[in-house]
Amino acid sequence: MEIKNINVVKIGGNVIDDPTALADFVRIFSSLKGPKILVHGGGKEATRLSNEMGIETTMIEGRRVTDRATLDIVTMTYAGLINKRIVAMLQAEGCNSIGFSGADGNIIKASRRPANPIDYGFVGDIDPQNVNDSLIRILLEAEITPVVCAICHDGKGTLLNCNADSVASAIAIGSSRIAPTVLTYCFEKAGVLADVDDENSVIPLITKDNFQRLKENGTIAKGMIPKLTNALESASKGVKEVRICNAENLLSDSGTKIM
Amino acid sequence: MEIKNINVVKIGGNVIDDPTALADFVRIFSSLKGPKILVHGGGKEATRLSNEMGIETTMIEGRRVTDRATLDIVTMTYAGLINKRIVAMLQAEGCNSIGFSGADGNIIKASRRPANPIDYGFVGDIDPQNVNDSLIRILLEAEITPVVCAICHDGKGTLLNCNADSVASAIAIGSSRIAPTVLTYCFEKAGVLADVDDENSVIPLITKDNFQRLKENGTIAKGMIPKLTNALESASKGVKEVRICNAENLLSDSGTKIM
Repeated sequence: MEIKNINVVKIGGNVIDDPTALADFVRIFSSLKGPKILVHGGGKEATRLSNEMGIETTMIEGRRVTDRATLDIVTMTYAGLINKRIVAMLQAEGCNSIGFSGADGNIIKASRRPANPIDYGFVGDIDPQNVNDSLIRILLEAEITPVVCAICHDGKGTLLNCNADSVASAIAIGSSRIAPTVLTYCFEKAGVLADVDDENSVIPLITKDNFQRLKENGTIAKGMIPKLTNALESASKGVKEVRICNAENLLSDSGTKIM
Repeated sequence: MEIKNINVVKIGGNVIDDPTALADFVRIFSSLKGPKILVHGGGKEATRLSNEMGIETTMIEGRRVTDRATLDIVTMTYAGLINKRIVAMLQAEGCNSIGFSGADGNIIKASRRPANPIDYGFVGDIDPQNVNDSLIRILLEAEITPVVCAICHDGKGTLLNCNADSVASAIAIGSSRIAPTVLTYCFEKAGVLADVDDENSVIPLITKDNFQRLKENGTIAKGMIPKLTNALESASKGVKEVRICNAENLLSDSGTKIM
């Protein structure tokens, strides 16, 4: 099959933690025509499992500090439970998929984050150059949908916990080397909102220029800053279209476009 | 790459539970020339995790009863922790591998075992006809080593806990449709022993005929019976060579052959 365009879709905890939302999403995603890749985050399962096992969860600036015990937990939860659950659901919808950590097929190699200034433990960062696009091409040509979690590896035998938005961005940049790629970040809002309490205040377009302004005037804050930074990086590195929208609106054209 | 022969190797808990043994095995396995597939069991991690989470483990005739909570635990442990750990180690040895549950790429479809006479819960059985040999061919041609755990799926969205020896047997029978296949079951002994306390008493050859005799006189008992039943089934269904040996002797010709 000749690959003319690729859809990369990222879902997060709000979809993963809600069985009905996840089932709905899987149905919608499966109906997307053509080559596609799903990237998923973790949700609350890892924290729940940590609590049950009496392992303390330490977050610094919204990121999980990943010691050896926590690495085992996120590997089990993201690459095991959630990934296989999604793959089985996709198969039931007739969408042939294979679940991936970054180690599988060496699809994404990461570098362990330096311990200075903050030691996050087994946490990795990704250079989009280290996305294995030749493997992605083989899979998409075989009409297989990769389902990628955010556990990557360093190529030397160590798994690393990465940020799922960054994984989605790197995968989309890598896919752009194969064919024009659309990257969609699904989350719980209709898009990036000018007024966080008003779902009708979706900002239709964010560019490098207005992002700076929107940050300065406080419209965009907290978790939206790294998400938009990833989105803008993707757009600047060859991804044809980047969009942030509600998972329910995946098939429509709504939400915020990032250029 | 033209596929001339395939090695299918199965490892169990004795290798998986011992970090040094696992590292040694990964090195030996990586040095096996040509197309190869690794099937792994679970080891004690699932039981340890169940204990830590206060979930009771029920075994009937050596098989784990798999309720919903236990299914989550074995999925996390086998398809997540152990599978990804092995894949990362193989990558470090330069052996390009992808981890699989049966759901991934629909590589193995299983049927839920009937609740009568014993309800094992989410436990599946495999018909070797339901091994996806066309996917295996694509992977092996791309010089990718599938690493398969014993979590399969029913194709309707439900994961099922299967027996790893049976998975190895089914994979080997499926691979035999691609090219002549050698199946090696690695375990903690030098082979099937005539005297369980004497490592020098390896029975060199077991056939359908002497298996019956060895069962009757009590030489072969307990867990060796299903293992040899799987081995004999593989041999009768097209697998070129079946062998049981110590993981350390994978590259040699030692152990018990089954024909």
